[in-house]
Amino acid sequence: MAPPFSRTEYSDRLTRVRDAMQSRELDVLVIGDPANINWLTGYDAWSFYTPQIMVVGLELDPTWIGREMDAGAADFTTYLPPEQVVAFPETHVQQTDIHAAQFMGDWMKSHGLDGKRIGYESDVYYLTPAAVGHLKERLCNSSWQDCGLLVNWQRLTKSPAEIAMLQQASVIAAKAMQTAYEGVRPDVRQCDLMADIVAAQIRGMPEFGGDQTALHPLVLAGEAASTAHPMWTDAPFEKDQTIAFELGGCRKRYNAGLARTVHLGEPPKTLLTTARAVGEGMDEVLNAMKADALCCDVHAAWQVVLDQYGLEKKSRIGYSIGLGYSPDWGEHTISFRPDDHTPLPENAVVHIILGMWMDGWGMELSETIHVRESDALCLTQFPRDVHVIDI
Amino acid sequence: MAPPFSRTEYSDRLTRVRDAMQSRELDVLVIGDPANINWLTGYDAWSFYTPQIMVVGLELDPTWIGREMDAGAADFTTYLPPEQVVAFPETHVQQTDIHAAQFMGDWMKSHGLDGKRIGYESDVYYLTPAAVGHLKERLCNSSWQDCGLLVNWQRLTKSPAEIAMLQQASVIAAKAMQTAYEGVRPDVRQCDLMADIVAAQIRGMPEFGGDQTALHPLVLAGEAASTAHPMWTDAPFEKDQTIAFELGGCRKRYNAGLARTVHLGEPPKTLLTTARAVGEGMDEVLNAMKADALCCDVHAAWQVVLDQYGLEKKSRIGYSIGLGYSPDWGEHTISFRPDDHTPLPENAVVHIILGMWMDGWGMELSETIHVRESDALCLTQFPRDVHVIDI
Repeated sequence: MAPPFSRTEYSDRLTRVRDAMQSRELDVLVIGDPANINWLTGYDAWSFYTPQIMVVGLELDPTWIGREMDAGAADFTTYLPPEQVVAFPETHVQQTDIHAAQFMGDWMKSHGLDGKRIGYESDVYYLTPAAVGHLKERLCNSSWQDCGLLVNWQRLTKSPAEIAMLQQASVIAAKAMQTAYEGVRPDVRQCDLMADIVAAQIRGMPEFGGDQTALHPLVLAGEAASTAHPMWTDAPFEKDQTIAFELGGCRKRYNAGLARTVHLGEPPKTLLTTARAVGEGMDEVLNAMKADALCCDVHAAWQVVLDQYGLEKKSRIGYSIGLGYSPDWGEHTISFRPDDHTPLPENAVVHIILGMWMDGWGMELSETIHVRESDALCLTQFPRDVHVIDI
Repeated sequence: MAPPFSRTEYSDRLTRVRDAMQSRELDVLVIGDPANINWLTGYDAWSFYTPQIMVVGLELDPTWIGREMDAGAADFTTYLPPEQVVAFPETHVQQTDIHAAQFMGDWMKSHGLDGKRIGYESDVYYLTPAAVGHLKERLCNSSWQDCGLLVNWQRLTKSPAEIAMLQQASVIAAKAMQTAYEGVRPDVRQCDLMADIVAAQIRGMPEFGGDQTALHPLVLAGEAASTAHPMWTDAPFEKDQTIAFELGGCRKRYNAGLARTVHLGEPPKTLLTTARAVGEGMDEVLNAMKADALCCDVHAAWQVVLDQYGLEKKSRIGYSIGLGYSPDWGEHTISFRPDDHTPLPENAVVHIILGMWMDGWGMELSETIHVRESDALCLTQFPRDVHVIDI
């Protein structure tokens, strides 16, 4: 077992982060997002349910600080030398009077970081107010700044090796959707179909295996289809149901999303009309997307079609996708919506998801897309029309 | 589709939380942990990757505030009337200059909560420093107190209906482990076996379906077995490997854990000796466990056996388990270790996990256990010895 990318690639990523730190006048970064930790070093384990951070300095090399029983994972998932892997003792796990972040703060202080300009991730899932409070208390001579999505923004442009990883994830995504198409029938329980789908995601291909996607696999059927993220049940699918699947594939924590819609029986006219609008909208999005296109302009191309059909969608239609741990595969940087004027960089990978959650039913269509110099390429090749199953 | 528990049960849970609030002199609670939100109201969706809170007052009924596209899930997973379901607009999702918690704070203020004594969860996964900062800014006349695990502690004692749910989860856990035993062989890829195992977890039983466990299913084989939470790979299992599985079952977000160990080929003597110690340790733990026993005394029963064998384990041997979303199924309240003097309540459900991560190999044995008035009952019936597969 070895890190998925070369030493050179991790070194390049670190350089980009340090450049961004310098331009933000930060000496030190406290990273809590496990996807950012993985991206910088390869560290990969289900370790982030107890406190875990990575400390990166302009002079200090990336140092993982986490639970003692998880420190060993650095040996086989990173190139980090032992001095960059620091374990807090098991006595600090889930106590009322002592917190792992106190240990982390003490370690940082003893390594000369008090007084430095420290940036921290203020809005990620696994760096809590309590943890940040303890760190600030321990390093009370430092200036503490919210560094926002400093690392996430570096992840927006993908390397060739990352694109290759996402291509593998996209192959798995197609296999998962094919499994859905083959199995969805009236009287089949949702959980039975999802069992087959998730198994296909995890099994992957003979050449490369799969992982659980960071976003929970979603099936929108019946009353649940009017919302975006329902959990599956053991209710059976029914004749005349419209069923949307938001699935995907995951390879070494790199996620590709893929959403499609199935109808069991004769599709109603409203579904077909909505599907036509959504299909044309996807075509226009793909036509508008290439390096240097603005996110808002890509959204505008979709909006033109939607307006023609007299339909409304309040939410953004996509975002940057890639490396991610539960609960999300989005990178939280760009969004495709009217007020996002970010120009798309070449080699961004984005998930355009056209979800229409209507009154009592819903449909979805999505593509994971590689933004190239003069065009945009769907990473999964899979028919886009509503899949009608004759009953 | 309906909430998994009766109105009476949710009402009883709310009463317990309000009693705890009163004894802590809190008027209002801001809950960020989706498991606590679910426990109080049934709300269940993969919605917590954007900001989501529940506000509970001594006078204000539990009110969900989350993303517009997820509000509909309250219709079919809770008994909440529409006025207790508040949606922030899609324009507030993942922006740089506007935050959903500002909307939440405005809503709280407009409902007369500024100036109240507000408790908030400071150390849960999905309530970030940024969100808490915005809330405090909006309700600047309130006193803000860390409420710690106020809700989690109410969850420690399970109702009969919750025990029944955990019994179902435990049946699924046995099925998952049986799948592991049947499939683990040299040359089988880890991902292929995990695909079958996770499918078994999700498929569940003919009478009730399953869900993904909150803790990622874990397989510890080869070099990865010296750490506690490695991710599976597509490497094949090998002859002479000791392989530990930490699996489990999940039913409507209620998790039961189950860990066992397999050896492919002739088991080495160190494994057999360690397994004997761990097996005897589990027996002693079960003998020591009943209502009113102290967590530290249960741990001491284990430590006696470990000392006899001259073995060491630095980490706690268990914790309260139940309702949970990714990434953890533990309730973060009690831990079985020398310094936890909490008396076990009747109808607690705990996961005792005896993980021995040695030098280059590891083994695990666990049980999910119902604490009863005068004894303790394993919820899954599954042989405990190391499963040796003749090669």
